[in-house]
Amino acid sequence: MKIIELKETITASNDLDAEVLRGEMKAKKTLLINLMASPGAGKTTLLEKIISNLSPKYKIGVLEADVDSDVDAIRVSMAGAKAIQVHTGGMCHMDAGMTRCGLEALEYDELDLVFLENVGNLICPAEFDTGAGKKIMILSTPEGDDKPLKYPLMFRESDCLVISKMDVKDYFDFDLDKCINRAKALNPNIVIFPLSAKTGDGFSEFIKWLTEQIEEWIR
Amino acid sequence: MKIIELKETITASNDLDAEVLRGEMKAKKTLLINLMASPGAGKTTLLEKIISNLSPKYKIGVLEADVDSDVDAIRVSMAGAKAIQVHTGGMCHMDAGMTRCGLEALEYDELDLVFLENVGNLICPAEFDTGAGKKIMILSTPEGDDKPLKYPLMFRESDCLVISKMDVKDYFDFDLDKCINRAKALNPNIVIFPLSAKTGDGFSEFIKWLTEQIEEWIR
Repeated sequence: MKIIELKETITASNDLDAEVLRGEMKAKKTLLINLMASPGAGKTTLLEKIISNLSPKYKIGVLEADVDSDVDAIRVSMAGAKAIQVHTGGMCHMDAGMTRCGLEALEYDELDLVFLENVGNLICPAEFDTGAGKKIMILSTPEGDDKPLKYPLMFRESDCLVISKMDVKDYFDFDLDKCINRAKALNPNIVIFPLSAKTGDGFSEFIKWLTEQIEEWIR
Repeated sequence: MKIIELKETITASNDLDAEVLRGEMKAKKTLLINLMASPGAGKTTLLEKIISNLSPKYKIGVLEADVDSDVDAIRVSMAGAKAIQVHTGGMCHMDAGMTRCGLEALEYDELDLVFLENVGNLICPAEFDTGAGKKIMILSTPEGDDKPLKYPLMFRESDCLVISKMDVKDYFDFDLDKCINRAKALNPNIVIFPLSAKTGDGFSEFIKWLTEQIEEWIR
């Protein structure tokens, strides 16, 4: 597995860098999605399912951002995506410059869809525009329905909230309505998909929305 | 609920500040424990159980550090601890100066034991010495047994690893031996307690160890 060692990009203009990158990717018809969640919320599992669903139709790449290891990049590349592992040099997030380095190493020109699987963290990744066209966050039911109260920026910044591990929601006393109301109070436009990657429930609605986003970006 | 709004302490000498704070707390016979974990790993639930177990014997305080909300401070204060909510001003971690501000607001002089419930995050809190006498991390089984590979610093820095939500480990294919071996490879001295706050299994062994740490600190 190819591993890229990154250092934080020293730039005062991350927002500008991100806009430039987003424009370039729009021109090349590649949709970059910034996928964010806590450690263990199910980012890689969701990606594996997306890849096996969409890879016949779209060419998919994945930038796996982690402080260490390459276990996730191996998993998504076995699922059928072009994958690269980026190490963040201890950093808790990816910024636009780091994302550009990863994309160049991935040679993304021929790809329709690239996922940036961000570092597992509900705080810092929300603060940095990576240049992605869409931002998806995952909250897993074992984490609790109070998370919008405690990590509001992530919910405000995301276009889409996937509520994962719905098959165990009752075991963890996760109140779906409360969680949805809390997320919508922070971000009325957020699109929410409760699903279980294990049972497949709710997955097709999410894939339908994702396909619409890709089609809109690449047309 | 009293809420303290913090800003990041601007100091080049966090390690020194932390050493000074640790010395002061040793002199005052108050053990400060830095409790770290991902969002939703069960920090507050574990604290509630610890407080109801130990509060007859020890005076306990809690600094609840969050980016926003005061739900956790309310929970632990209902469990019987003197609690204060600190807001980190968007910061993803607590440092020694921020901890000192919180401790002063808590008026900790009469307390035997203070928990700093750090921001939910497996990366940044591991990088900052808060002045705590002991560091405890929690990993919950839904997060997966691969987390030591991806967040090694947290496992290296902690004195104790609580593996929580053991009652659902089989559902999430969590391999306990693999997880323990990975944690011990990073930190041979780490003390590990697999437990379930829901069923109570494994909890008494953890409380025994915790009581020993308190007795050693305050004697």
